[in-house]
Amino acid sequence: MSLADSHSRQDGPVRGRPRSEAVERSIIEGVIGLLEDGVPLSELSIERIARTAGVGKATIYRRWNGKEELFVDVVRAAEPPDPELPGTSVRDDLVTLVEQLRRRGLMSRSSVLLHNVIAQMKHSPKIWEAYHAIVVEPRRRKQHEILRRGQENGELRTDIDVDVMNDIVFGPMLVRAVMRPDADLPEGLAERMVDAVLEGLRPVSSPTP
Amino acid sequence: MSLADSHSRQDGPVRGRPRSEAVERSIIEGVIGLLEDGVPLSELSIERIARTAGVGKATIYRRWNGKEELFVDVVRAAEPPDPELPGTSVRDDLVTLVEQLRRRGLMSRSSVLLHNVIAQMKHSPKIWEAYHAIVVEPRRRKQHEILRRGQENGELRTDIDVDVMNDIVFGPMLVRAVMRPDADLPEGLAERMVDAVLEGLRPVSSPTP
Repeated sequence: MSLADSHSRQDGPVRGRPRSEAVERSIIEGVIGLLEDGVPLSELSIERIARTAGVGKATIYRRWNGKEELFVDVVRAAEPPDPELPGTSVRDDLVTLVEQLRRRGLMSRSSVLLHNVIAQMKHSPKIWEAYHAIVVEPRRRKQHEILRRGQENGELRTDIDVDVMNDIVFGPMLVRAVMRPDADLPEGLAERMVDAVLEGLRPVSSPTP
Repeated sequence: MSLADSHSRQDGPVRGRPRSEAVERSIIEGVIGLLEDGVPLSELSIERIARTAGVGKATIYRRWNGKEELFVDVVRAAEPPDPELPGTSVRDDLVTLVEQLRRRGLMSRSSVLLHNVIAQMKHSPKIWEAYHAIVVEPRRRKQHEILRRGQENGELRTDIDVDVMNDIVFGPMLVRAVMRPDADLPEGLAERMVDAVLEGLRPVSSPTP
């Protein structure tokens, strides 16, 4: 959790003062360059990254606790940034977040780099764990907040556990984007999925048992 | 697809005459024994399997086209069998299939063997492909059939694509069982998920926009 706490921002590392942002960017871009050259994650050492970026190892260690945290920032730099939530309704916020899932799915299909890095990351338990703590868990917390807001303001049923509701809202796009690499991800799908899940799959006129 | 065609049964290989079922079972059990001893999939050769089961290589090749097909049958032997569908309603059939997903999830958490074999299978594109053709695709076809029946008999809306509907119905449990290994899979969850998806997440009394 300390990893996640130190990474609560969306668009740049918090560690280090603002003037060092350029340094961080050049380190991250150095790593991306090495990965694009086909160097596997497992062969990327802090030494090599420092050499490529033209900085000392200490400069890297001042910013990241280790290779794992740095890689997570590399993946985040390659992924589309987290969107602004419209806040007009819980439904609109959910559509925005499901749409982000769709875009990440499209991106990992079209970006060989992102695709490979994510695949390699899954084979490294330490990096995968860091990615979960830094990226996945905060995302899930945000999703939970929105769903709870919906239960409070009357937009959502209160008789379904928020954790289960989360899987119901995000599971369909997640499965399609991640587990079914050949499935279509057409524009408008996020909206259709969220509305179907909110309204239910029974016909409107049908009597519910 | 020829793989799938030759494996359309649920509870035993079609190839070979009935009296050879004992031979098939002993070959499959031999493989399970080797895997339980910690031999990785990649090191299991047909030679070794034949030696363990006390049969000739030809006996194996008469029944399976290769290592890949044999492994898929090994996984199926370790998984809970496909359930009988009650057929009382599309809703009941969907609950039964989602419940099967939940049970497979529980099983791959409790069975180290199944868990490891599935993990190793994902690293072998050929075996993964065979598993998809023989197991996953027929399952998905069956799911589609049920959803289409629901659209025809008025239980389900007709304005949502069956493929999208499939992800909406099965995605939540799939994500929970496969992608969230720490998430609860309590009894009754399949029923709650299917009903929530059918009725929708909006409160019953709320006006729909």
